[in-house]
Amino acid sequence: MEPELPTIFSAKRTSFVRSSVIREILKLTVENSDLLSFAGGLPNPHLLSKDVLSSVMESVVRENRNIALQYGDSSGYLPLRNQITKGLTDVPWISSDSITITHGSQQGLDILGKMFMDSDTNVLLEDPVYLGALQAFSPYHPQFFTVPMETDGPNLFWLEEILSQNKIHIFYANPSYQNPSTYTWSVEKRKQIASLLDEKEIILIEDEAYRYLDFEGNVYPSVSSFRKRRDLTFVLGSFSKILSPGFRLGWTVVPDVYRSLFTAIKQGNDLNSNQFSQVVVSKLLEVLDWNEHLRSIQIFYSEKKETLVSLLKEYLPEAKFSDPEGGMFLWVEYPKVSPKELMKQCLASGVAMVPGSEFSPANKSSSQFRMNFSFLGKEEMEVGVKRIAKVYRDINT
Amino acid sequence: MEPELPTIFSAKRTSFVRSSVIREILKLTVENSDLLSFAGGLPNPHLLSKDVLSSVMESVVRENRNIALQYGDSSGYLPLRNQITKGLTDVPWISSDSITITHGSQQGLDILGKMFMDSDTNVLLEDPVYLGALQAFSPYHPQFFTVPMETDGPNLFWLEEILSQNKIHIFYANPSYQNPSTYTWSVEKRKQIASLLDEKEIILIEDEAYRYLDFEGNVYPSVSSFRKRRDLTFVLGSFSKILSPGFRLGWTVVPDVYRSLFTAIKQGNDLNSNQFSQVVVSKLLEVLDWNEHLRSIQIFYSEKKETLVSLLKEYLPEAKFSDPEGGMFLWVEYPKVSPKELMKQCLASGVAMVPGSEFSPANKSSSQFRMNFSFLGKEEMEVGVKRIAKVYRDINT
Repeated sequence: MEPELPTIFSAKRTSFVRSSVIREILKLTVENSDLLSFAGGLPNPHLLSKDVLSSVMESVVRENRNIALQYGDSSGYLPLRNQITKGLTDVPWISSDSITITHGSQQGLDILGKMFMDSDTNVLLEDPVYLGALQAFSPYHPQFFTVPMETDGPNLFWLEEILSQNKIHIFYANPSYQNPSTYTWSVEKRKQIASLLDEKEIILIEDEAYRYLDFEGNVYPSVSSFRKRRDLTFVLGSFSKILSPGFRLGWTVVPDVYRSLFTAIKQGNDLNSNQFSQVVVSKLLEVLDWNEHLRSIQIFYSEKKETLVSLLKEYLPEAKFSDPEGGMFLWVEYPKVSPKELMKQCLASGVAMVPGSEFSPANKSSSQFRMNFSFLGKEEMEVGVKRIAKVYRDINT
Repeated sequence: MEPELPTIFSAKRTSFVRSSVIREILKLTVENSDLLSFAGGLPNPHLLSKDVLSSVMESVVRENRNIALQYGDSSGYLPLRNQITKGLTDVPWISSDSITITHGSQQGLDILGKMFMDSDTNVLLEDPVYLGALQAFSPYHPQFFTVPMETDGPNLFWLEEILSQNKIHIFYANPSYQNPSTYTWSVEKRKQIASLLDEKEIILIEDEAYRYLDFEGNVYPSVSSFRKRRDLTFVLGSFSKILSPGFRLGWTVVPDVYRSLFTAIKQGNDLNSNQFSQVVVSKLLEVLDWNEHLRSIQIFYSEKKETLVSLLKEYLPEAKFSDPEGGMFLWVEYPKVSPKELMKQCLASGVAMVPGSEFSPANKSSSQFRMNFSFLGKEEMEVGVKRIAKVYRDINT
């Protein structure tokens, strides 16, 4: 869904700006409380205990006001960068100086787009791809290439073909529990691709927003950790799924050689990240039993996933999907119906999903839909799936 | 001070990225507690009472968690947009739909740069100009023009000359207590310039970050409020100076015709503004006696300004400046010394100011320095001014 672009004075790059149907649906959800939405990537706000939050806020207001209520370093709050360096990345060579705190990992994507992408920059994407990356990169108007995906990662034959036939500058990838496909690269493919990228001197932007959302508590080694070319690998992380999207904080691991440029762009974008949130998140990381906290999130999401899987099997056996290892989504194929019609009738019946075409760089039609299972309660999910089933059968008869 | 640009692969626009000596000095201040800094634009973090903050936080955690800890509308939290519409702008034709909450008003500048500026876009700036605007706009590489300033606003003769000789597309201006010059446009000039901009069909980006910082409690009518061309005027506001920069929130008043484009760009930048901060700020606006709160800030800054003025008159009568009507700065001329040398020796002696060249689009040398008076205590200011006086005399003998 393209934004209604004004026919008025604007920069040339605005003709490449992409809107997001997800954000439009989120707006509908805010306005209409009857709409059951499988559309967003909304974590559950009840995973952080009120009492812990309350006491952290109190201590920040009493003890850290001078820092929390002020402007701060453009790279981010140092104690938080230290915590990320020690506990939230497996890239072995980094220090706290390698970390820049961003306004959600989305801002990292925008900064990297601004830093790297001109109209002659060749950017390789997974197909399907995370919509937010398309939104961040598109205004800079790079040339997009796509690699076909299998459930264990990119098809290696095609990847090598693409890399041998084109000078690819940048590969943007989301190797764990990918949004939207849920596909997770095998360790073997991570090693092979890291070595291929080294050989071809390709910059990797590795999006690890879902790193800690494995249902079994596993953590995959990052592709970046296998790279020899440390100067050509960026890693994006996020607190949105492991703490809360309300704090709007993520981070980017930036190679030394790009650090001053990355920081200067960050300054131009917004001076610095939200200082109050940074101090709160740093304190939360101190007081929470982190492994226990992560495990409780993983178990919560695992149970939610099971619920949606069972409901689809019960009410909509025609729907096809592969069972994910982690994350917040199912990537569901609804065969033999027009996806546009299904989307339209679902919204009219009070239930939302995201059509697969949103995740295609070329907006090509797709019989797949992304369904989030982390936000709705069990009863709401059941009502929602029944609504989809009814719409699907009504169209498909 | 330009960033040390890496000699590596990057987009062409990165050669126009500007770093900020202010942010570098802020970093030094964080690292070295002995450095007395007149450099930043740091509000005082003690203007919000601990008890009010504490009870607002508690109520947000207890009562608004579902909203505060979630993703939100890309345009911003509706109750906060309503509050801004009702009480924090004088543009008469707007509704809450006209407001987009941004990550500091700085983000508004970046979005407007992205939306409007190509290499053939002609942008008129005040000279000197707010450094953050240069940082936001420069990577989009527009053509900059400058208009000479008088203490009551742009020199009208030169403004008309420039507008008649060039097709100016955009005028970025900071008409009240300008950062860095402190100059404030007279009401008469506001009217004349609004009408001139209407006639020439020029887009105005009016930066009102200091709107409520008048020492006497006056509020100037915005230039935008005098415009007939409502489709060509954007107004930027900020909570950083009237509540706290720690919440990192500002807003942009966007004309109807540009609204969907502005929101789509905002989405690509960071999906949405910090939701937790938005709920907290909205609640603060509810519970504070707003007029009393503003008046206490204004009185506080007025007293701080008087302190710095007296200290300069006592210890450094050679320094020249005009007495501002509001804001957080003095714009001080140190005659007969090399500004580079003064800057260098001041930093070596443990005191920081911002050299005027930072605020020049062409980085041209200036004998003026920007001095902030809102952050340091009285004793610190006295020590700081004495340090500058000693350095100045040592150089100037």
